[in-house]
Amino acid sequence: MVENLKQVIIVRNDIGMGKGKLAAQVAHASVSAIDKIVIDWPEWVEQWKSEGMEKIVLKVNSEKELLILFEKIKTMFPAALIKDAGHTQIKSGTITCFGVGPVPEHLIDEFTKKLKLV
Amino acid sequence: MVENLKQVIIVRNDIGMGKGKLAAQVAHASVSAIDKIVIDWPEWVEQWKSEGMEKIVLKVNSEKELLILFEKIKTMFPAALIKDAGHTQIKSGTITCFGVGPVPEHLIDEFTKKLKLV
Repeated sequence: MVENLKQVIIVRNDIGMGKGKLAAQVAHASVSAIDKIVIDWPEWVEQWKSEGMEKIVLKVNSEKELLILFEKIKTMFPAALIKDAGHTQIKSGTITCFGVGPVPEHLIDEFTKKLKLV
Repeated sequence: MVENLKQVIIVRNDIGMGKGKLAAQVAHASVSAIDKIVIDWPEWVEQWKSEGMEKIVLKVNSEKELLILFEKIKTMFPAALIKDAGHTQIKSGTITCFGVGPVPEHLIDEFTKKLKLV
């Protein structure tokens, strides 16, 4: 068992997603991030699910900021970048968010500690 | 292959969750609903993931309304009821939402067609 596991979802705050749209994108990122982590660290996913699936939703202000952070985090953990299918609200193919984890909290916090909550 | 698969998340609109809080609860419901469906219908989950994970976030106006719908839907499919851990914004143990699916769209729509999008 590692100390504390957390999933982090980073969303773009600059594209005007409504509450329901944002929630659906975050859920998409959450499921996709789990699917990536479970390949190499199935024990983390199991532990995290048994402990209540702690997750946090943070924001950035541009696609560029999102992608720079995504590339940095990907050097340590696989992460899931989400593009909207574009049925509603925003243009098809727009990058909306990415998800990473569950991963050890102290490792991911190094990348995300300066970001604000949505 | 069944025709079209969809996940539905029903959230309470009466407890004043902010965007980030709501998104985290919806993600929790999404992951938990998949974990329930995959036991009996793994082929639905596989198909749904390969087709873009269509999901919809709908609202009700009270805990009672949420629970009545949850019990009805549970007669057909396993569904995942989410209680908040209460670290932020709302009282610990508050029922916030539930998720069901992925399931065939025409079957779940019978239960949810009168509800509005978040």
